[in-house]
Amino acid sequence: MRILIVGAAGMIGRKLAERLVRDATPGGPIAHATLADLIEPPPLPEAEFGVRVTAADLADASTVDDLVADRPDVVFHLAAVVSGEAEADFDKGYRVNVDGTRHLLEAVRSVGSGYCPRLVFSSSIAVFGPPYPELIGDDHPTAPMTSYGTQKAVAELLVSDYSRRGFLDGISLRLPTICVRPGKPNKAASGFFSSIIREPLSGHEAVLPVPEDVRHWFASPRAAVGFLVHAASLDGDALGDRRAVTMPGVSATVGEMIDSLRRIAGTRAVELIRRVPDETTMRMVASWPGRFDTRRALQLGFEAEDDFDEIIRAHAEDELDGVGTVAA
Amino acid sequence: MRILIVGAAGMIGRKLAERLVRDATPGGPIAHATLADLIEPPPLPEAEFGVRVTAADLADASTVDDLVADRPDVVFHLAAVVSGEAEADFDKGYRVNVDGTRHLLEAVRSVGSGYCPRLVFSSSIAVFGPPYPELIGDDHPTAPMTSYGTQKAVAELLVSDYSRRGFLDGISLRLPTICVRPGKPNKAASGFFSSIIREPLSGHEAVLPVPEDVRHWFASPRAAVGFLVHAASLDGDALGDRRAVTMPGVSATVGEMIDSLRRIAGTRAVELIRRVPDETTMRMVASWPGRFDTRRALQLGFEAEDDFDEIIRAHAEDELDGVGTVAA
Repeated sequence: MRILIVGAAGMIGRKLAERLVRDATPGGPIAHATLADLIEPPPLPEAEFGVRVTAADLADASTVDDLVADRPDVVFHLAAVVSGEAEADFDKGYRVNVDGTRHLLEAVRSVGSGYCPRLVFSSSIAVFGPPYPELIGDDHPTAPMTSYGTQKAVAELLVSDYSRRGFLDGISLRLPTICVRPGKPNKAASGFFSSIIREPLSGHEAVLPVPEDVRHWFASPRAAVGFLVHAASLDGDALGDRRAVTMPGVSATVGEMIDSLRRIAGTRAVELIRRVPDETTMRMVASWPGRFDTRRALQLGFEAEDDFDEIIRAHAEDELDGVGTVAA
Repeated sequence: MRILIVGAAGMIGRKLAERLVRDATPGGPIAHATLADLIEPPPLPEAEFGVRVTAADLADASTVDDLVADRPDVVFHLAAVVSGEAEADFDKGYRVNVDGTRHLLEAVRSVGSGYCPRLVFSSSIAVFGPPYPELIGDDHPTAPMTSYGTQKAVAELLVSDYSRRGFLDGISLRLPTICVRPGKPNKAASGFFSSIIREPLSGHEAVLPVPEDVRHWFASPRAAVGFLVHAASLDGDALGDRRAVTMPGVSATVGEMIDSLRRIAGTRAVELIRRVPDETTMRMVASWPGRFDTRRALQLGFEAEDDFDEIIRAHAEDELDGVGTVAA
């Protein structure tokens, strides 16, 4: 089995590659993996399979054909300009998130000779827009409120059409907001959800720009990688014609997140959260979804955390060498 | 008021131009109209306003800027590769229906200096896919079953995002299947719905490839032109962020259509319909919607026919100099 990860230098891409090295065999043992990103991703020295790392810009169609020349069995398409940046730089968002996706799909299609790989696309719950019902189903209309969400919705439509036409065997995973993101904040508008957990756990202050009653939908990086691996080997027939699936997650208010932080890391950690209301962020967050009915994903075997405590523990285990080190 | 019609040589584009000459003033008297299509549209000799006819290929970005150089107040975007052709020629469908639309939106955006025209985009109920509820609302998910429907859904997303960003003031009209289409059949897979009315009315045989219980959603060319004219002057604020609206129409089975034909043109006309079941057409039609809840469009003031008799009468009046000539 040959694997291609596009966007392999990103946080999720890196974790996915490491997971494949460690224990995952999505549908069979891995013979080779190509890791591609705008900048050449770091190698995987522990891998027992062949690894190629390469710099490629999806927005440049001429560099994309090369990525699929060795006919990978599974293509993970994780490359994206994130929400805040896609809103700030309209052209860049469309160039990467729409044109780049199309270039990748076209590259797969142009291989021909019956080549029809599983393509796993990281979409987002940003494809949805208000008004929301109490529980948002997979059938909620895709009426995005951001350019990022629009671009993801467009890419989903392309993945579905290319799948229906038999050019590839695609699945679009509508990922929850990934929390807790390790490392530095990226340009996603949702970054504060991670900061208010991650920074206090390391003894640093974090800024909370929204009220505590804001409810949103989360999964850990570990769960997200699990979704991707599971999607790689899912039976395409079980998906039918609706190729976009909302991933399971944890619905939590900011207040509930803070309660979890208190339970796991103590009051001193919570006291590092500074409330600095920000109108712009509040306006954006007001259009974000809070709770999903993901029975379809659950039936297909996707699994997320059960509660926000578990999300924080996953972060502590994966990034901080265990919960013990973070307890106050 | 300056008008641009892209796709002006098509059936609806031509009728729209003639309607503007005759009596319509979408939001004010017309000073000038540009009529553009792949081939140069015929002139409008009766027009009391300036008319420019021009050949332009939306798929060629370099020719599109010129179309909006005189800053039209209303842009009608009707240019499209139709359903059957978009399914048969995958590349052509995307080139015109997706890239072409994007080129037009980008041309509008690049004018700058506060230019923000009303853009009326002819989308289609083909953006929807099964399973359908008894009454399909505007909120039904866009899960198209054809490349044409996919391309229209993508274009709707773009129109909404460009509108939200303030680059234009767009509205996407999800048109019913237009029936009765005059003239020769086009490459739309739905063409037989028109043929089984139009041909018998002129004393010619027509082929019916599907059973009589097939139900679908129709509006006359006259109603479609009415939608476009109404959309041109609609208050953008009344639309809010959801810029795609399903247009009203008539829900009818093929059997009901034939009953209407019998009432209006007699049994001899109906006897000209030859039943030649076609598996491919039946498979496609099986995924088509039958009945919509269009209360949003009705509240916004859009109007269609009340029943299929009225649709046939509109055809007779507009194309055959009145019903009298067609009565058996």
